[in-house]
Amino acid sequence: MSKKAVVLLSGGLDSATYLAIAKSEGFECYALSFAYGQRHRCELRAAENVAAAGGVKDHVVINIDLRKWGGSALTDDIAVPERKAAKNSGIPVTYVPARNLIFLSLAAGWAEVLGARDIFIGVNSVDFSGYPDCRPRFIEAFQNCATIGTKAEDEGWKFNIHAPLQFLNKAEIITRGTALGVDYSLTRSCYNPAPYGQACGKCDSCHLRRAGFARAGIKDPAPYVSAPQ
Amino acid sequence: MSKKAVVLLSGGLDSATYLAIAKSEGFECYALSFAYGQRHRCELRAAENVAAAGGVKDHVVINIDLRKWGGSALTDDIAVPERKAAKNSGIPVTYVPARNLIFLSLAAGWAEVLGARDIFIGVNSVDFSGYPDCRPRFIEAFQNCATIGTKAEDEGWKFNIHAPLQFLNKAEIITRGTALGVDYSLTRSCYNPAPYGQACGKCDSCHLRRAGFARAGIKDPAPYVSAPQ
Repeated sequence: MSKKAVVLLSGGLDSATYLAIAKSEGFECYALSFAYGQRHRCELRAAENVAAAGGVKDHVVINIDLRKWGGSALTDDIAVPERKAAKNSGIPVTYVPARNLIFLSLAAGWAEVLGARDIFIGVNSVDFSGYPDCRPRFIEAFQNCATIGTKAEDEGWKFNIHAPLQFLNKAEIITRGTALGVDYSLTRSCYNPAPYGQACGKCDSCHLRRAGFARAGIKDPAPYVSAPQ
Repeated sequence: MSKKAVVLLSGGLDSATYLAIAKSEGFECYALSFAYGQRHRCELRAAENVAAAGGVKDHVVINIDLRKWGGSALTDDIAVPERKAAKNSGIPVTYVPARNLIFLSLAAGWAEVLGARDIFIGVNSVDFSGYPDCRPRFIEAFQNCATIGTKAEDEGWKFNIHAPLQFLNKAEIITRGTALGVDYSLTRSCYNPAPYGQACGKCDSCHLRRAGFARAGIKDPAPYVSAPQ
């Protein structure tokens, strides 16, 4: 019997890639997505398509209304900026307070019920957007915290939080996923999509995606409102 | 200006007590409750009453459907036992996988938006039910994890997770709250209440509550289906 893993699945290109990596490592995958009040809710349709294409065992979408307190351009009435003014200029307004902490906590809960010890998340330290919850130290601290705060410690095992994209740049991620047969036409990355789901082409996320495909020498199959600038 | 604190508020007697403690320490309190698919959903009415009586600045109820995966007598079709067969007999079936981790993560998210560094939770090591997420080491690990995974570290501050009931027994909690003027008639503790909210008087939580009031020499004002056995 293959080992089970909970895979956080946003519907973006990173999540499609590490789902493929988890499968290639022999995990039986349980995809977990969140309707958290995000502006780019269309990513959930993408997540469904990616989950289906990736042959997951189950896909659960949890609703949590983070708009109750907002505090991010993704969950509040704050404009999504058209690409960060400067690299490393602090934590951007698209940071959603404690998002990865919340998502990983729910993943740990489901994993405990499933009897899974492995959780996949797409945090990244290279082309990353300056989010504090994408740091390797956070992932380590979470692993420790979740192990202590669940049955794991009493039962003598530990959570393994896999972040296989941590040290890859976007082009490397795309190259890796393409080699594993990921269909990137199913994925969506834009923070501020048009009503029919076309990517804006201007936000930080669109910029990183486009630059990654360009550097990988692979055509980006996502629909954009406008041509690259 | 008083400091802000997020106070996890279940509507049980512990939460009413540490809300009163937080207020007595000068915190402006923001109460956070969860509709997580719990069997004893009537505790949310109690939470509203306790929040109002406690003069909180705001009270948010977050819906998260933990029945999507269940795994606990509180969130699944598993019977609530009529008091644990033996003390320290392992983790009971009423344990909800990763519940305090999930609740604290959401509290950290709201705290970050509010500019609060303090979170109150009612974990307890004395009359506790054998839940791994009530251990002091878990609270420490969470504090560290939340500090690393949010703006806190970049801004040079730390989360303080207050667990003022950690080392009090139930009778001491009730005595303390009574001295602070807590109205325990508003609180509900039962895991398996009757349709009109009367406590079953038989589950572990009812047992702990009744024994606590008896030991404190204070009358328990909660309505019960049956008299003490």
